[in-house]
Amino acid sequence: MTDATAFVRSSWYVAASLDEVSGKLLARTILNEPIVIFRTLNGEVGALEDRCCHRGAPLSLGEAVADGIRCGYHGLEFGTSGICSFVPGQPNIPSRARVRSYPVAVKGDYVWIWMGDPATADTCSIIDYPVDDKVNWPRIHDVLHLKASYVMVLENLMDLSHLSYLHKNSIGSSSEDSANANMDVSRTPDGMRFLRIMRDADAPATWQKRYKIGAKVDRWSDFEYVAPCFIKQYSGGVRAGEYDQGVREGGHQVRTLHAITPETETSCFYFFNKADGYAKYEPADLVRTWASTTDVFKEDAFMLEQQQLRLKGYDTSKLVNIKSDVARVQMIRALQERIRRDQEQLASGQ
Amino acid sequence: MTDATAFVRSSWYVAASLDEVSGKLLARTILNEPIVIFRTLNGEVGALEDRCCHRGAPLSLGEAVADGIRCGYHGLEFGTSGICSFVPGQPNIPSRARVRSYPVAVKGDYVWIWMGDPATADTCSIIDYPVDDKVNWPRIHDVLHLKASYVMVLENLMDLSHLSYLHKNSIGSSSEDSANANMDVSRTPDGMRFLRIMRDADAPATWQKRYKIGAKVDRWSDFEYVAPCFIKQYSGGVRAGEYDQGVREGGHQVRTLHAITPETETSCFYFFNKADGYAKYEPADLVRTWASTTDVFKEDAFMLEQQQLRLKGYDTSKLVNIKSDVARVQMIRALQERIRRDQEQLASGQ
Amino acid sequence: MTDATAFVRSSWYVAASLDEVSGKLLARTILNEPIVIFRTLNGEVGALEDRCCHRGAPLSLGEAVADGIRCGYHGLEFGTSGICSFVPGQPNIPSRARVRSYPVAVKGDYVWIWMGDPATADTCSIIDYPVDDKVNWPRIHDVLHLKASYVMVLENLMDLSHLSYLHKNSIGSSSEDSANANMDVSRTPDGMRFLRIMRDADAPATWQKRYKIGAKVDRWSDFEYVAPCFIKQYSGGVRAGEYDQGVREGGHQVRTLHAITPETETSCFYFFNKADGYAKYEPADLVRTWASTTDVFKEDAFMLEQQQLRLKGYDTSKLVNIKSDVARVQMIRALQERIRRDQEQLASGQ
Repeated sequence: MTDATAFVRSSWYVAASLDEVSGKLLARTILNEPIVIFRTLNGEVGALEDRCCHRGAPLSLGEAVADGIRCGYHGLEFGTSGICSFVPGQPNIPSRARVRSYPVAVKGDYVWIWMGDPATADTCSIIDYPVDDKVNWPRIHDVLHLKASYVMVLENLMDLSHLSYLHKNSIGSSSEDSANANMDVSRTPDGMRFLRIMRDADAPATWQKRYKIGAKVDRWSDFEYVAPCFIKQYSGGVRAGEYDQGVREGGHQVRTLHAITPETETSCFYFFNKADGYAKYEPADLVRTWASTTDVFKEDAFMLEQQQLRLKGYDTSKLVNIKSDVARVQMIRALQERIRRDQEQLASGQ
Repeated sequence: MTDATAFVRSSWYVAASLDEVSGKLLARTILNEPIVIFRTLNGEVGALEDRCCHRGAPLSLGEAVADGIRCGYHGLEFGTSGICSFVPGQPNIPSRARVRSYPVAVKGDYVWIWMGDPATADTCSIIDYPVDDKVNWPRIHDVLHLKASYVMVLENLMDLSHLSYLHKNSIGSSSEDSANANMDVSRTPDGMRFLRIMRDADAPATWQKRYKIGAKVDRWSDFEYVAPCFIKQYSGGVRAGEYDQGVREGGHQVRTLHAITPETETSCFYFFNKADGYAKYEPADLVRTWASTTDVFKEDAFMLEQQQLRLKGYDTSKLVNIKSDVARVQMIRALQERIRRDQEQLASGQ
Repeated sequence: MTDATAFVRSSWYVAASLDEVSGKLLARTILNEPIVIFRTLNGEVGALEDRCCHRGAPLSLGEAVADGIRCGYHGLEFGTSGICSFVPGQPNIPSRARVRSYPVAVKGDYVWIWMGDPATADTCSIIDYPVDDKVNWPRIHDVLHLKASYVMVLENLMDLSHLSYLHKNSIGSSSEDSANANMDVSRTPDGMRFLRIMRDADAPATWQKRYKIGAKVDRWSDFEYVAPCFIKQYSGGVRAGEYDQGVREGGHQVRTLHAITPETETSCFYFFNKADGYAKYEPADLVRTWASTTDVFKEDAFMLEQQQLRLKGYDTSKLVNIKSDVARVQMIRALQERIRRDQEQLASGQ
């Protein structure tokens, strides 16, 4: 189950960040389906099959109009419902003239898309940020396009022991501290959760410089996985000894939403949205001290893409689990249950 | 039938323009077959299977000799008949030593190749230019290598409503003028024909500048499709009102041969040869004012390649015809009949 | 049998030159298997499956440790035996935690790898250089990565008539001299051998300049093929007439080991190691006069890659042998026998 063998259809996914559809049409393949995500001139956001029903041209090569989108080849227009609203040179519209439309919603920094039966789309099920307070928790976001399964990205986040190796020159703690980490894993209705605490651990150099909390710290990561492809991360660090006194503020304070949208079975879009609780103590011009997140995630991206290549055609049942896989294994189980539920739902709906 | 599911073999195709084989060997795949097109040192043009019968090296990596071509690997020589004429180091030539030879002919600016049974090649069936008068109709030609089916290129030319959208910034008329165009479509023994007239239409900016025939024009396009892959285009424009008075001269006057040679099922070479009847009124150094044709066709090329990607594996029977497809639909029928005839001919010949 | 349809497993292959594994881990696919070749910090050379048994990450992205290699993803360590020696965060090592290990040996300038049953690996069967005397026969080596079957590289070397065509501007003799060459071919227990002599032949321009042996030379090539993929070359040239007097020294004197390691069915690594017996007569700073070998072999590489493309999916039984194929045909027979023996050995071992 390392490679996703099936996608969950009945879920909201991040289709794009709002800035990606500002003033332009965005072509993006999601769950193997070519989709154009756009904003009409009137401001409505839409997501349509990116293939004109007339001659198959990508609608994303066209342009936004008042209430929809116009194909750049022969000028057919479509509303956000996918129904053709205008055919040049003729008054009537053929009844079959439509493209598939996907339910969308704008929430936070993103356009969300529902890939299941449109009748069952409910925006209440769109995941919340771990924190949504731009004043006290200013945030940044970015997206990486990875040639790796979305499952591999999730798995990467579920086993933080990799920080001591893959990220040893950036955010990693020492391998000894990592080995001594206390792990607490539990299932949730929607997925699972782990709390990983490293007490009296070496502080990364960047922490010492920024937070002035000394060379020894208590460091924790609280990760909540919500199937199929979301992780809410609550991470922090305080002076060594303060964690067990209940101190959570004053040092490293990060709350990140990781949303990984499958493109194909072996590629994905990795959206991350990181809120920083310490930035409010800093002058605004220091804000970039916490913005190197993309560089760290590019270290992951490189490794994941090479891992994907090595697993192509490989029987992954031969791989060997170790102790640090405890959260990853629970995550995979939760995902498999979600896939199973989704397939039952699809089967019963037909 | 959007994608060509079969090629017509019993046809002449443009293999290359003469300048492409001037002083060099040209490797080109036609109808999925690797072919070398060349001129011997004695001046004869030949087209051979681009694979030496000895070790399979491409003959196109060799060089022309007096009566043929020499393989650049071990020196075998072949005449334009494909029969091996020299083997280094031995007096006798193995009887099996030959490569496939294709009938060729030089006509106009091109080397033409016959892809059917050589016994049935008749140069009389090579298509004529719409006009062949380099003094009064000076002409230019170019070729684009497209990752799109040759059928898509034909279809593009059969529905000129795309000019108002894809070429709106270059040669397109307004979408209103386009919608009001008068279309007359008819079948011919070899294909079909359409005459498209826009009366009292807005003149493109480039026309106003070049022809000085005012802002309102009568504009016509007479397109003759000759199966499998040729279009003779006669286009023109005069002052509004003059068309019905029989005026055809003094403004826009273009006669183009479009010859689209399939490379594979999803790629082709698009040769166009455009004669301009107005250029004779202009100083020779103004001749480039009508030479931006390649730029316009590159707009088509980009769209066609993206369209091809979107239709990969797609059931094209789901596409919806509109009124402006009237000529395209007739063209496809004529092509299908030609493919059917070709296959019957091949079957009876075996 | 032009394309290798099977690889010989029970053979030593050149895995890498020693300089390729100096201070870095080398990822290389051999016989379709991804392998990391490395030197531990203690100096031992190892070759392991380049796929961590934990999550499939390439071990070549990790780093060397004292007695092995450490995965760069989650820190597992493996000795050169392939057995996992350390798992971060746990004292015990899962019994299944190991990767495939390949027997290796260092000999001459290379790391050699045994691709067969490790129990049958015997370093005595590693091929010797044609000469191993760095004082009197200083040598250079290089490697080319070719998108062509290793068999095609062997075949190239077995038919030296190509020198007059493919290398006519570098090392080739005239086609007349080549056609008049005397060829003597014989089988050996491990492969075959040919001696090719051109008497009173034109000397290449580079020879005339370097050796000062005149414009007419006797020139010979003694090639010994050792299955599956080695050629020992002994080549030389002296003044015309001297060869039959037994003179072998004073002019062109080259002894080369060609070792071609299959990567996939249609790609390989071509290692060549050329010793020059004339260099000792020259000032050391003239040594580069005999070092353009890579440039010549790149002429071969280009042709072979194009040949490979032309033979993709082609029925090579249609190709026609000529007289100059005499050695090549014997080589192929010897290789086929070696493949047959290898397969019998594998079958009996199971």
